[in-house]
Amino acid sequence: MKLLRFGEMNAEKPGVLDADGNIRDLSGVVGDIAGDVLSAEGLAKIAALDLNSLPVVDGNPRIGACVGHVGKFICIGLNYSDHAAEAGMQVPEEPVTFFKATSAICGPNDDIEIPRGSVKTDWEVELGVVIGKHTKYVSEEEALDHVAGYCVVNDLSERDFQLHRSGQWVKGKSADTFGPIGPWLVTRDEVEDPQNLSMYLDVNGHRYQDGSTKTMVFGVAQVISHLSQFMSLQPGDVISTGTPPGVGMGQKPETYLKPGDKMELGIEGLGVQKQVTYAAE
Amino acid sequence: MKLLRFGEMNAEKPGVLDADGNIRDLSGVVGDIAGDVLSAEGLAKIAALDLNSLPVVDGNPRIGACVGHVGKFICIGLNYSDHAAEAGMQVPEEPVTFFKATSAICGPNDDIEIPRGSVKTDWEVELGVVIGKHTKYVSEEEALDHVAGYCVVNDLSERDFQLHRSGQWVKGKSADTFGPIGPWLVTRDEVEDPQNLSMYLDVNGHRYQDGSTKTMVFGVAQVISHLSQFMSLQPGDVISTGTPPGVGMGQKPETYLKPGDKMELGIEGLGVQKQVTYAAE
Repeated sequence: MKLLRFGEMNAEKPGVLDADGNIRDLSGVVGDIAGDVLSAEGLAKIAALDLNSLPVVDGNPRIGACVGHVGKFICIGLNYSDHAAEAGMQVPEEPVTFFKATSAICGPNDDIEIPRGSVKTDWEVELGVVIGKHTKYVSEEEALDHVAGYCVVNDLSERDFQLHRSGQWVKGKSADTFGPIGPWLVTRDEVEDPQNLSMYLDVNGHRYQDGSTKTMVFGVAQVISHLSQFMSLQPGDVISTGTPPGVGMGQKPETYLKPGDKMELGIEGLGVQKQVTYAAE
Repeated sequence: MKLLRFGEMNAEKPGVLDADGNIRDLSGVVGDIAGDVLSAEGLAKIAALDLNSLPVVDGNPRIGACVGHVGKFICIGLNYSDHAAEAGMQVPEEPVTFFKATSAICGPNDDIEIPRGSVKTDWEVELGVVIGKHTKYVSEEEALDHVAGYCVVNDLSERDFQLHRSGQWVKGKSADTFGPIGPWLVTRDEVEDPQNLSMYLDVNGHRYQDGSTKTMVFGVAQVISHLSQFMSLQPGDVISTGTPPGVGMGQKPETYLKPGDKMELGIEGLGVQKQVTYAAE
C-alpha cells in the first residue's frame, strides 16, 4: 500500500493511493498515519478495506509528510562509502547517528526555506524507514519485522551550521522545512529489497545524485539493530539512512542552494519529491 | 505555580501543587501540561482558578515528567566552564547543541536503567527550560518571554556510547529513562533569576555536584536566542542547559553508576529528584 497524508500543514488527513492513482480518504477509518496504525495489525486493517468504498479526494490537495506525530527523526551519516569520500571523512566503524528536529518535517513538495545567514544549504536524497512497532535490543535478523514501510527523505543540511558552529551536526540539520518526507509511506510488503533501490536528485534539471541503496555501508537491518542498542524506537519514528554521492559540498567548486532553485528527487517505487527554495524572512 | 503530571507512565494526568503541598487534579480543566496550555494565556487560565475548588489527589501517586508531548529535548553541552575543564574540553565559542531522544523522558523519581553493555553511565544535574510559545529568530532581549517555566533535569549519559561509538553524542544520551524531568514545572513568574539558582547532585549520599546556574557560560536567554537561529521552538520543547562540575567522568578515578545506586538531585525552588539504578535486562 501507498499511504499518505493530505491537506493543510498540521491538519493533514490520512489517505491511501488506489490502483488508478487516486487518493482515497481514510479519515473515516483511522485518525492518522501514525502510531499504532503503523503496526502489523493496523496496516492489515487498512489492507483489508475495499478501497472503492472510500471517498475519492477531489482536486489537487497539498501532500503532507507521509507519517504524523513523528517521535524521533533519526539520521545516519556517511553511510555510503563514496559520499564519505566526497565529504572528506572516513567511513565509520559503526553507523554515525544524529537527530533532526521533528519541527523540520514538511511535505514532499513544500517550499524549502533557506535559513537566515545560510550560504551552504545542501541536499541529500535518502531512503527513509518508518518504524512500525516498539523496538529495543533487536537482532539484525528480526529488525525488518519492525519496519512499517519506506519513503523518500530529503535530508537538507546547512554545512556551515553543521560543521563550524561549535559542534554536533544537529545545528545544521534542523531548520524548518529541512525534512520533507514522502509522498508515500510504501508498506514493507511492496518493497522487495530495500538494499536494491535506485535513487536520484536533480537541481534545476541537473542530475547531482544518481545512486542506489546497494552501496549503503550499513544496511537497514543493521542500522535498526544498532540504534536499538542505544535507544528504544516507537511506531512512527523515522530513520533516514544516509545519502549517496553528489551533494553540493562534494562538487568542485562546492555548489549550494540559492532562493528559487528547483529540486526533484526520487527513489525507485517510493515516489518523487519536488521543491522550490526561498530565503527565510 | 508548580505544575506537574501524576499517574502511570504515558497516562499521566495534569495537576498543580497547592499552598499546603497537596496535588490538585487539573484534568477537569486542561487535557495535559503540554502544548498551548504552556502559553501565557493557558497558564493565566490555570492561575485564575481557585485551587480549593479542585479535587485533592489522594495517596502517593507516581509523578511523571512535568511536561507532556515534548517535541524536542534539546541539550547544551559544556555550558559551565569548570565542567568543560573536568571533561578535558575547551569552552566552546557558541552553545554546543545536541538532542536527547524524547523516548528517554521519564518521571523524576522513576528507576534509571543502565543500558546493556554500559560501563560508563553518568549523571548531570541541569536546569531545564520549558518553552511556552513559538520561537524563531528571537532576540536575547525577548527570549525569556518565550519561557513557560523551569524544571530539574538529570541528563544521564553513557560516556563510552557518547564519545567512542562513531561520533555524535546522541548515542550516549538517549537510552530509556535517561531523561527524568520534574517534579514540577515552576512557572517563570516564580523564578526571579534563572541565573542564580543553586543546584546539587548526590550519589549514595556523597555530594558530587554542588554548583549554581551563576556559572553558566551561555545563559538561558542567550541559549534560546541562539537555538532559534537554527531551528524553531514550539510550546513543550525542553532545553536542558548544561551541567556544573562533578560528573562521574570528572572524578579521579572516574566513577560511574552501578545497579542499585541512589541519586538525589535538586535545584533551588524547583524541587528534588530521587532515582535508583538497575541493569537493563
